[in-house]
Amino acid sequence: MKRRILVIGGVAAGPAAAAKAKRVDSSAEVILVESGEHISYGICELPYFIGGEVKDPGRLIVYTPERFEMEKGVVVKTLHRAESIHPLRRLVEVRDFERSVVLEIPYDRLIVATGSRPKRLGIAGEDARNVFTVKSYPHALALERFIAESHPRKAVIIGAGYIGMEMAESLAVRGIECVLIHRHDLPMWGLEQGTREAVAEELSAHGVRFVAKSEVIGFDVSGDLLVKRVRTQNESFDCDLVIVSIGVEPESTLAATAGARCGSHHGILTDRRQVTSVGNIYAAGDCCEVRNVVSQKWMYAPLATIAARQGRVAGENAAGGSAIFRGALRSIAVRVFSLEVARVGLSSHEAKEHGFDAVTGHIEANSRIPFFAGNAKVHVTTVAEKRTGRLLGANVYGRDGAVLRANTLALAIQQRLSARDLAETDLIYSPPFSPLWDPLLIAASRLNKPMRDNEKPDSD
Amino acid sequence: MKRRILVIGGVAAGPAAAAKAKRVDSSAEVILVESGEHISYGICELPYFIGGEVKDPGRLIVYTPERFEMEKGVVVKTLHRAESIHPLRRLVEVRDFERSVVLEIPYDRLIVATGSRPKRLGIAGEDARNVFTVKSYPHALALERFIAESHPRKAVIIGAGYIGMEMAESLAVRGIECVLIHRHDLPMWGLEQGTREAVAEELSAHGVRFVAKSEVIGFDVSGDLLVKRVRTQNESFDCDLVIVSIGVEPESTLAATAGARCGSHHGILTDRRQVTSVGNIYAAGDCCEVRNVVSQKWMYAPLATIAARQGRVAGENAAGGSAIFRGALRSIAVRVFSLEVARVGLSSHEAKEHGFDAVTGHIEANSRIPFFAGNAKVHVTTVAEKRTGRLLGANVYGRDGAVLRANTLALAIQQRLSARDLAETDLIYSPPFSPLWDPLLIAASRLNKPMRDNEKPDSD
Repeated sequence: MKRRILVIGGVAAGPAAAAKAKRVDSSAEVILVESGEHISYGICELPYFIGGEVKDPGRLIVYTPERFEMEKGVVVKTLHRAESIHPLRRLVEVRDFERSVVLEIPYDRLIVATGSRPKRLGIAGEDARNVFTVKSYPHALALERFIAESHPRKAVIIGAGYIGMEMAESLAVRGIECVLIHRHDLPMWGLEQGTREAVAEELSAHGVRFVAKSEVIGFDVSGDLLVKRVRTQNESFDCDLVIVSIGVEPESTLAATAGARCGSHHGILTDRRQVTSVGNIYAAGDCCEVRNVVSQKWMYAPLATIAARQGRVAGENAAGGSAIFRGALRSIAVRVFSLEVARVGLSSHEAKEHGFDAVTGHIEANSRIPFFAGNAKVHVTTVAEKRTGRLLGANVYGRDGAVLRANTLALAIQQRLSARDLAETDLIYSPPFSPLWDPLLIAASRLNKPMRDNEKPDSD
Repeated sequence: MKRRILVIGGVAAGPAAAAKAKRVDSSAEVILVESGEHISYGICELPYFIGGEVKDPGRLIVYTPERFEMEKGVVVKTLHRAESIHPLRRLVEVRDFERSVVLEIPYDRLIVATGSRPKRLGIAGEDARNVFTVKSYPHALALERFIAESHPRKAVIIGAGYIGMEMAESLAVRGIECVLIHRHDLPMWGLEQGTREAVAEELSAHGVRFVAKSEVIGFDVSGDLLVKRVRTQNESFDCDLVIVSIGVEPESTLAATAGARCGSHHGILTDRRQVTSVGNIYAAGDCCEVRNVVSQKWMYAPLATIAARQGRVAGENAAGGSAIFRGALRSIAVRVFSLEVARVGLSSHEAKEHGFDAVTGHIEANSRIPFFAGNAKVHVTTVAEKRTGRLLGANVYGRDGAVLRANTLALAIQQRLSARDLAETDLIYSPPFSPLWDPLLIAASRLNKPMRDNEKPDSD
């Protein structure tokens, strides 16, 4: 008898899981249900569509449902929302929005990939016509339509995380005056202090007003349901547009209600095969928590890379395979105007929190030979275990090659290498691309002997 | 009594060794002798001075003798050529060119950093006024002066290695017509076939004529001592300028004559502390051979990175320390017009030669999200041990981020990681910088299961 694998959720982890499952067991019947109209699109690219860097919104869609069905052999049902899972009967109740009926879809294996939802402020006016989140393809289209039709001049962005940064840039390049309201003293909690200061400077240099240590306490809403003013405890800000980017939380209720164990971040917990605590149910993507490979602790890291990897593992295993997902570092980068900002592994704060006796080192170095075109300062902050020198985490920022350099640190951290291992690595020196001592070598060498050696490796 | 450390050679390894020695033992008397007028300059940058990218030749000099003396506390004697070493008497005979005398300089520890010399063709006319090598600061100044005064229109470059590539570009951007004569069928022996083909195409696309499988058999020299025509076995080429870039060989005669053991590449052999076979004599830089950390075989790899590392190790040990140089990968990159070309570790040819049962995989992938500005194809060729998947070497080429990506491969190879380790690495995805599946992950994943899996990781 044909095995039926049912996948709930069509954005990132779901399609990865479905395609992989079908590839591993081509005889299986793989069905994907998605409550929205679209599947398989890039959430990370949405801000760049608003910013105009991506002209054609169609490019954001990796697969249409039709193409996905044809190329991957997966049955796709859009506008179908899973409403409840019945593990004992092994079926899911699914509402078909077009026909307005509730179907019961039986499964042999179920993969939950319900993703995440934007956190809400819980303030009256949050659903006004000019308040947007940037979490889905329809959100982005709606925001773009609003900007094109209403020509807002002033925007208030609430929350200075990754999406807040990207939206500030995207709106600013369109000539919209931006105020960025954040509850902490600096943007981007989770990065090191120096990195956060550099980000704040970059925002300010591009005319974005960063309002620190502020909580939004109210919206003034006009009769035509538009927020006209955003109020914080200290100050009020006139606006034509509001972006709420205060983070996301796992959409885990469906699985939790069916009995799946969740963690302290409210994400679904799975084993390394992406199996939940409920028989025959797998989970993947933003609805899950993930093991941090450095600390071996659970974290919530809603990232496309992790979703794709977890999805493939869930899909392979649901189809009878035995794949393993070992966890993730949380490797992230963002462009803040012309500044590249990357973070891999643990922050110095997390390292301490997780009981590491950690040291932190910071260096500033040239990305290329100083007198070559394209040279810029690269800043590297590394966090390492004091006794062993084992690399635990890093921030890299600058205007030339910060992100790709962070990838080398990601490999070092994931492989539990020490600062010394990195310092001894034979990296490339080539005048148009990199200096004799790459910033990574300088950073590693500094951390390797922070007390004794003040020399710059490139000074002799 | 004060320890005296004498260093012979002032370009790369010598200054690194001298500075390090003085830093480790500040009471030591450290003397550096150099036969030329200049010390501490970048040989790798010389072609870019000819190409005009480096405007001020003064920028090529890292330290003047005066500044090096002042900042590093090392006594510098330029225009002093070491002529013979007497290990039993522990002294070096040094010719002082200015005073035209030969001095005897005693030492407690000697560091030989005599570098390399350009290989010669052994053909009459090689010393004509318009024939140049690009191996030293004075060479570059002389070539620049010749171009400025004589306005050559046609150049013949002999030898298509790294310097040949850089000189072709440097001369071509100045409007000089270039013919590149090479004895192999493709440029840049040591790179993989596909990489070499891409380089040949890039040369041709920029109007450089690549003449394959040709040996220069003669020069036609005019009465005013200029080469007017370069003859090969098949064809002759009119020219106003000749660049000879057929490689370099170790300048090891001085040490060899004093009894230092040399290897099959004629470079000085040392232990991991950079100690030669002769008591109290260390060696570092282009005059030495170096252990390939992948094959554990001796190789000749005259690179600034290796020279600097060896120099520091020799300096530290000569001053009483106990530093170790474990060897090198041979990490190299070159820009060929707008193509970035990088190579790390063993070539597929070398892997076989050294007895590895190796597989080679090649992928082409996007450097960024396809519809983002700056996206370009990146090509990655990886060589791995068949049974274990251990990465042995790689080529990366393309027009966006090839070199910095090769550095991540360098770390993987040096740390004996497998394709699978790399494939599981949590690299960054950020639309302006890198795609969901970085080319490195695609390359690693392809190599990890070359037979079974034709999927592109970014296709699901």
